[in-house]
Amino acid sequence: MTATNTIENAIVPFVKNAWYIAAWAEELDDGMISRTIMNKPLVIFRDAEGKVGVLEDRCCHRGAPLTHGEVITEGLQCGYHGLVFDTTGACVMIPGQKNIPPDARVTAYPVVEQNQIIWIWTGDPALADESKIVAYPYHDQPDKWPHRKAMFQIKSNYMLMIDNLMDLTHLGYVHTKTIGGNPNQHVAAEMETRPTDNGAYFIRWMLDHKPPPTYVKGGKFEGNVDRWQEFEYVAPSIVLQWSGALEMGKGAKENRDQEGFHLRLLHAATPETETTFHYFWSTSNGYRQDDPQATQEMYEEIYPTFIEDQVIMGVQQDRINLDPDRGLVAIHADSALALGRIAVGKMLEKEQVQVSQAAE
Amino acid sequence: MTATNTIENAIVPFVKNAWYIAAWAEELDDGMISRTIMNKPLVIFRDAEGKVGVLEDRCCHRGAPLTHGEVITEGLQCGYHGLVFDTTGACVMIPGQKNIPPDARVTAYPVVEQNQIIWIWTGDPALADESKIVAYPYHDQPDKWPHRKAMFQIKSNYMLMIDNLMDLTHLGYVHTKTIGGNPNQHVAAEMETRPTDNGAYFIRWMLDHKPPPTYVKGGKFEGNVDRWQEFEYVAPSIVLQWSGALEMGKGAKENRDQEGFHLRLLHAATPETETTFHYFWSTSNGYRQDDPQATQEMYEEIYPTFIEDQVIMGVQQDRINLDPDRGLVAIHADSALALGRIAVGKMLEKEQVQVSQAAE
Amino acid sequence: MTATNTIENAIVPFVKNAWYIAAWAEELDDGMISRTIMNKPLVIFRDAEGKVGVLEDRCCHRGAPLTHGEVITEGLQCGYHGLVFDTTGACVMIPGQKNIPPDARVTAYPVVEQNQIIWIWTGDPALADESKIVAYPYHDQPDKWPHRKAMFQIKSNYMLMIDNLMDLTHLGYVHTKTIGGNPNQHVAAEMETRPTDNGAYFIRWMLDHKPPPTYVKGGKFEGNVDRWQEFEYVAPSIVLQWSGALEMGKGAKENRDQEGFHLRLLHAATPETETTFHYFWSTSNGYRQDDPQATQEMYEEIYPTFIEDQVIMGVQQDRINLDPDRGLVAIHADSALALGRIAVGKMLEKEQVQVSQAAE
Repeated sequence: MTATNTIENAIVPFVKNAWYIAAWAEELDDGMISRTIMNKPLVIFRDAEGKVGVLEDRCCHRGAPLTHGEVITEGLQCGYHGLVFDTTGACVMIPGQKNIPPDARVTAYPVVEQNQIIWIWTGDPALADESKIVAYPYHDQPDKWPHRKAMFQIKSNYMLMIDNLMDLTHLGYVHTKTIGGNPNQHVAAEMETRPTDNGAYFIRWMLDHKPPPTYVKGGKFEGNVDRWQEFEYVAPSIVLQWSGALEMGKGAKENRDQEGFHLRLLHAATPETETTFHYFWSTSNGYRQDDPQATQEMYEEIYPTFIEDQVIMGVQQDRINLDPDRGLVAIHADSALALGRIAVGKMLEKEQVQVSQAAE
Repeated sequence: MTATNTIENAIVPFVKNAWYIAAWAEELDDGMISRTIMNKPLVIFRDAEGKVGVLEDRCCHRGAPLTHGEVITEGLQCGYHGLVFDTTGACVMIPGQKNIPPDARVTAYPVVEQNQIIWIWTGDPALADESKIVAYPYHDQPDKWPHRKAMFQIKSNYMLMIDNLMDLTHLGYVHTKTIGGNPNQHVAAEMETRPTDNGAYFIRWMLDHKPPPTYVKGGKFEGNVDRWQEFEYVAPSIVLQWSGALEMGKGAKENRDQEGFHLRLLHAATPETETTFHYFWSTSNGYRQDDPQATQEMYEEIYPTFIEDQVIMGVQQDRINLDPDRGLVAIHADSALALGRIAVGKMLEKEQVQVSQAAE
Repeated sequence: MTATNTIENAIVPFVKNAWYIAAWAEELDDGMISRTIMNKPLVIFRDAEGKVGVLEDRCCHRGAPLTHGEVITEGLQCGYHGLVFDTTGACVMIPGQKNIPPDARVTAYPVVEQNQIIWIWTGDPALADESKIVAYPYHDQPDKWPHRKAMFQIKSNYMLMIDNLMDLTHLGYVHTKTIGGNPNQHVAAEMETRPTDNGAYFIRWMLDHKPPPTYVKGGKFEGNVDRWQEFEYVAPSIVLQWSGALEMGKGAKENRDQEGFHLRLLHAATPETETTFHYFWSTSNGYRQDDPQATQEMYEEIYPTFIEDQVIMGVQQDRINLDPDRGLVAIHADSALALGRIAVGKMLEKEQVQVSQAAE
């Protein structure tokens, strides 16, 4: 079989010069967590003063993981022989010893805590521009957008999730038992797809459409609605989703920011290894904000759907692993997916140039 | 230690130009199964018209396993984005798209359903001669040979099972707790061993022999019997067994096809990887055909015996893996085993020649 | 990060020309055990006459592990086809065959049973000098030193345990929940550290010290004590520990061999693979010898402590595996550890010379 019409590189390399979600802020409530990002085992901790640090999870003394230690007043203490490190990675205490040698330090990563998210920069620290972090103010608006967060481990390359979100025809096959509905209806939707400066964008419209039960209950609709699904991919790892519906005649296509049914999701695929990633997602209830039960129901409806994606991406990666360079056959539904792949490809190229220039 | 008297190649390569058992027909009752054969993950399915297909278990679109989909009227539908394939591997439907590109297809394998067995050909399709399939009519004779089938996963190279069946002295050591009996009796049996056109053959006679309880009950014997165990290896993967006994004086050695105790087994070792195989076996009751309970008892007696073989072959492979090229010391009991190894070696040589000629 | 002040080779190679503990004698009470030492799977068995043999756990006939067989009068019988081997590795019986070919043998290792310990020599048999075996007479003195033995599997290179025992500052961090106590007290102890002919030695003194409850109960102390912890590393794999306390004024530093509190431990790290080892340890009660309950209590107090070491060494190795050649930063507390590493380094160098000379 020769595939003439293929997308290259099922397994996409890491884009290092980028901000990634390392953790939800609430994960540090107990002091620290251990997490591998881009093959590097990290300890993410909050020190006694509330400052967040991301360090290599390996003591420079005898190699023990720092996550086996504890946070004390002076910093993060190794649980083997008691060395203490601050959030910059510097060793600040060695039991039984006054002078601290200059090589007693561990690698620290640039970190920003914003919108209840711990963001880290995994590439060249000199390029870590905080203004490039994706803003997600909805997390900080509990009255307007009450939300819930979650994190899944997925056994596939991170780009398989971007692909997944960029081609919604999968809803009719993967999610038949949950939110899927009629495949033909999804296939027949009106689509607008375009590249963005740093990713890809599409919006899918289902106009004059009978709203599903959740929508009716949330949006208090009496008749048909104009329904949309908007996805924006911010390469390499973030997808912003805004799904919703307005009563027909309200001019949804001109202005969606009106009362109706609104749901926002943040999706983030942070590479753990070449073939696994951390799937961070949060879902914000923009339709029954004063009902905590509605937020919980929304979460419980979405959760099993994303488990279905977790399963299919895992088995898809299993097959890809058998011959990662083998071609894949593109179909019409892949247009947004293709734009996403182009966007991440550009970032990788740019990074190559940066590395080359740095070497000159 | 230098082993001067050794059998080479503990781990035998795959013979590709051959028919193998891929499944029992009844395994497709629920539509399809996933099975890896010679390192290739396959989907084996029965379409809406009853036709069996064996396809590579990887969608050409995004690499998802087709076994995560379902059989619909048009064929086998991928569970990710809905592409449909027929038993020839051609894509016959792409949701939301009218033209199907010619490269939208998956590899299909020649397949024959015969005697309740799904046979596949894993080599050059041009050489797939159906007349070479081993006939096993007993499966289709429920009145004369009521039977039961099973399949085990064994963690060893497939030839370790052929070796196992070609040297019955193991009965006295591996099967002491089940059918083994007295080792010396087995060692002392009368043996006839010879090569065949495509394998090896032996028959073991225990003449004027006190029959074991199962034999007495099945054959209604009152005195001693002439007992035999006949094994025919059809390289590379099939062993046909006929065990039985006739009352003394009936001339068993001249004509075994008389009323008495008869048991037929089909053994097949289909390689999954170089060091694992699927062990298909069926056992046919030729002594109390009108008693379904007897067929079940026969099955339940054999089952734990083959589990003992599964265990010993697995740990044997563990040791061989440590140094696969290391020699093994031959003993007298290995004569049929050696003929079996010669037969498979000839097939491998022939295949090398075919590959070379094809390359000219 | 450049580490200028580092210890090389976190993963230390095997020293082959040395005696190692292969098993406690009592482990052979049921006839035999299977154990991998330096990547070689071995069967350690006691024959019908009580003699111990250590053979490669792989039958020379078809590669099956001999541990799937049984000890019979003639020797160790393979559980596949019945070949029998004696403690020298020679095949002494082949079922159905009179002549035994000379290549029918398996590798045997020099073995010595002494002090309830099975010692094996894994290197050149010509160099196996029994006088080099570490004497441990306490095992044979149940009245003076009642003891208990144990064995743990540890998932790290064997030298990580020697490191662990050579730097007791870890007590205050790893063993906070068990025997640890106050880290500063340990750090402040008086230390004497020196190299020995074949390893390293240190003794740690805590003079005029309030004895812990176990010590008071065992040594019947009424006031303060002079307390010590003595460790001798005999490269490559043995550490001898003598901990204890005498009443103040008895001149402990001049003569410790007086009535008081005495505890002896034998530690042995026998490599299983490059990154796993068997941790044999025994603990001898030299303070309440006539009370079997005291021996049991001692054992139960130490057991969870060594489990804590098992955990930290396992996760330490996980990190080291990510980049085994990466440097480690030395601190003041590492002085005995450094001597231990020097001692094992010398043995490895000597072995290189022996191998080179043998090749000439």
